[in-house]
Amino acid sequence: MSTELWYTERYEEHGAALSLKIREVLHREQSPYQNIEIFETEQFGTLMTLDGLVMVTDRDNFLYHEMMSHPALFTHPAPKRVLIIGGGDCGTLREVLRHQEVEEVVQVELDERVTRVAERFFPELCENNQDPRARFHFADGITWTKEAEAGRYDVIIIDSTDPVGPAAGLFATDFYAACHHALADQGVLVAQSESPLLHADLIRQCQGRMTEAGFGAVSSLYFPQFCYPSGWWSATLGRKGLAMDAFRIDAARAFTGTRYYHAAMQQAAQVAPAFLLP
Amino acid sequence: MSTELWYTERYEEHGAALSLKIREVLHREQSPYQNIEIFETEQFGTLMTLDGLVMVTDRDNFLYHEMMSHPALFTHPAPKRVLIIGGGDCGTLREVLRHQEVEEVVQVELDERVTRVAERFFPELCENNQDPRARFHFADGITWTKEAEAGRYDVIIIDSTDPVGPAAGLFATDFYAACHHALADQGVLVAQSESPLLHADLIRQCQGRMTEAGFGAVSSLYFPQFCYPSGWWSATLGRKGLAMDAFRIDAARAFTGTRYYHAAMQQAAQVAPAFLLP
Repeated sequence: MSTELWYTERYEEHGAALSLKIREVLHREQSPYQNIEIFETEQFGTLMTLDGLVMVTDRDNFLYHEMMSHPALFTHPAPKRVLIIGGGDCGTLREVLRHQEVEEVVQVELDERVTRVAERFFPELCENNQDPRARFHFADGITWTKEAEAGRYDVIIIDSTDPVGPAAGLFATDFYAACHHALADQGVLVAQSESPLLHADLIRQCQGRMTEAGFGAVSSLYFPQFCYPSGWWSATLGRKGLAMDAFRIDAARAFTGTRYYHAAMQQAAQVAPAFLLP
Repeated sequence: MSTELWYTERYEEHGAALSLKIREVLHREQSPYQNIEIFETEQFGTLMTLDGLVMVTDRDNFLYHEMMSHPALFTHPAPKRVLIIGGGDCGTLREVLRHQEVEEVVQVELDERVTRVAERFFPELCENNQDPRARFHFADGITWTKEAEAGRYDVIIIDSTDPVGPAAGLFATDFYAACHHALADQGVLVAQSESPLLHADLIRQCQGRMTEAGFGAVSSLYFPQFCYPSGWWSATLGRKGLAMDAFRIDAARAFTGTRYYHAAMQQAAQVAPAFLLP
């Protein structure tokens, strides 16, 4: 009988767990903020976990990263300045930098070690990190956003961990209000908003708080994501303006190189399940 | 330290596994065809497994059952006679019988024990089993379909297990041809077609085989389903006719009581991920 190694993430409050078969542990370190682990899995490529929670695998991260970036960018009429809060693995950054009209991307990740480890173990996600339009800051995203000048950004992407611990503030109304202030007219905010199956209340709360914070149009996106709890995930869009009508469908149709996202998917992903209809 | 019980299904060829926390084992039996087990989970209600594979949980089965039934029924202009192959847990049958225009549903399940066990442990899924329109046969679905008279059914639903063992024949071109023969003009076939993430080739093969079998219009539906491998699932529709244009959208809009499906979802679910676009 041979030895088998499995990595298991327990979704404790949901009485469920996901396991991935591991070939070897590639790296382990305790950063000032969290425990970072890298595994080589048998079927999902390289895996990164933070404090025991799956963050990214080679095989399925395209779903999340494409949906955290392209819908927001194609909802803005001319996105030039983008702020990413979190996003340390750089997969969202890579997708944002594929938009030629973007002139500057500021990424504010709390933990520099996440980015340094990603550069080493996820070279594909970090392939655009040398792009001169990318600027990296390792700092607290909430403070950064609150201190940003009014109207500084066209798009803000909240690529955060779960709303517990340091990330809890990223789901608060006053943080969304700070994003609203830091966005220019017609600015677009997108925030990861957890699982529709497991956290429907959080999605409704996120929509409600963005509305309270001043966003005139709010809409959630629903998409599959195997390695996150329940395999079904969401992101919530808020637009500074009165409608979510700015979708640049022709530009989206001309955009190539994605594996999940395409113009028709932007619209399909915004169709809520019946239990989450307004 | 207290004892914890977990049920784990390993997706061996994909190096992954899903686990559900168990309160107790409610029932175990070996039928003439397979091992049937019923568990009370901590967070997902009652769970049924067949030969160790998760078939249904109380909490998430609505996704699969609604998507296996309503899109096909609303694609047919006037579905009166429906054939379900498999479907022993009766969740698909329940949804089909919610369509008032349906006059007869013939369910052909190989293993009578699955239905009897479902009647005992999943009363909600079986709540329409006494409907006089429902007829149960416990027999081989392939033989049944091949022996059906031409044009006997308006809709055929293949609610099968994975394409291994006895269910492999349900994914074969000659079986789809038998379905085509057993369908009346404008008839609609729908077959579960596995995970887009893990089995993209099988989905393409299913589409190709339905086309070969004579279906003039073929389209897949994509939807979340936590308890099946990867949490992302598909069903493939074939229509006897030249286009998938018969969607009765007004009837779908007036249809209530679903938790996932609604008229706009029927259209959204048919938007393929970029990697599965034709």
